[in-house]
Amino acid sequence: MLIGEVIGNVWATKKYEGLEGQKFLIIKTEDGKRMVAVDPVGAGIGEMVIIATGGAARTVYNMKDRPVDAAIIGIIDGMEE
Amino acid sequence: MLIGEVIGNVWATKKYEGLEGQKFLIIKTEDGKRMVAVDPVGAGIGEMVIIATGGAARTVYNMKDRPVDAAIIGIIDGMEE
Amino acid sequence: MLIGEVIGNVWATKKYEGLEGQKFLIIKTEDGKRMVAVDPVGAGIGEMVIIATGGAARTVYNMKDRPVDAAIIGIIDGMEE
Amino acid sequence: MLIGEVIGNVWATKKYEGLEGQKFLIIKTEDGKRMVAVDPVGAGIGEMVIIATGGAARTVYNMKDRPVDAAIIGIIDGMEE
Amino acid sequence: MLIGEVIGNVWATKKYEGLEGQKFLIIKTEDGKRMVAVDPVGAGIGEMVIIATGGAARTVYNMKDRPVDAAIIGIIDGMEE
Repeated sequence: MLIGEVIGNVWATKKYEGLEGQKFLIIKTEDGKRMVAVDPVGAGIGEMVIIATGGAARTVYNMKDRPVDAAIIGIIDGMEE
Repeated sequence: MLIGEVIGNVWATKKYEGLEGQKFLIIKTEDGKRMVAVDPVGAGIGEMVIIATGGAARTVYNMKDRPVDAAIIGIIDGMEE
Repeated sequence: MLIGEVIGNVWATKKYEGLEGQKFLIIKTEDGKRMVAVDPVGAGIGEMVIIATGGAARTVYNMKDRPVDAAIIGIIDGMEE
Repeated sequence: MLIGEVIGNVWATKKYEGLEGQKFLIIKTEDGKRMVAVDPVGAGIGEMVIIATGGAARTVYNMKDRPVDAAIIGIIDGMEE
Repeated sequence: MLIGEVIGNVWATKKYEGLEGQKFLIIKTEDGKRMVAVDPVGAGIGEMVIIATGGAARTVYNMKDRPVDAAIIGIIDGMEE
């Protein structure tokens, strides 16, 4: 999984069927790239999150057989290194 | 998912079976790379889109068991950061 | 999918079972990297092609349950940007 | 698979359902990037490990249909080059 | 698939269940990165090989439902460019 920060929302009125109403968040990952993820845990802007990519995103509730490839799976409270 | 801009079309008369008639769009992603995606939402050149990659593309209508790995899943109206 | 140019063949007498006789082409992708793909459409050296990667390659005829991760799915006639 | 070093833990009180209680480790891979992985083998901080990514992570015990994309699959004792 | 050279072995006494006894080879890919792969074809150190990544690795004999994401699928005899 990747570590990233939720930096915004992306609005898309025209979406693929089954994704209507689905919120898409913009994530900035640790290597400075941006990606878009669905959010089944309710993360807010500015929060650090864990993101699962690939087929993992389709295991999320309501996303089975939906064309999504990234999902927030946890909101980070802290890291110990 | 990735954010990208539709920058053109790619023409391929000779395609793998089952992909005949399928339109392929050229997308420029935010890191400056080009990729090709199928488009089930009807995006046009110059539009910013959300692209799902990997197995997600095969969940799109008519793409089940087709060799595609990227699909446009939304047309971006705006981003709030 | 990726855009690339077929630049050669790779010969491998010793292959995993089920891949004997399978032709492998060397592709140079747009970012200058080389990859190897199976070719169900009959592309030739010097041709520009569309390549699908990941599980998509296993949807190709005769490749079900075979360890391949890239397949040529179209021969490019032209691009309009 | 990738080679990496376990460099820490990431704490996330709010996780996707089914991942509660799941420990997430921070791995630094050989190219200097950080990733997060589940750990079914019991690796400790400072240990070099082998990490499997993608759908492979969901084959791990208790991770079936869970949104995870990286798992530690071995603790490295040594490398011979 | 990727082209790489087998450069060594990685030893891991503690492995995920079902991978005990499985040999892991270290591969240096053409872009200079190292990866670890299972080897169902019997490649030796110094040999150039073709590597399939992702779910493809789990189609290999005995690797079904095992957490592996890379497998050597051919030993390269030559390349013609």
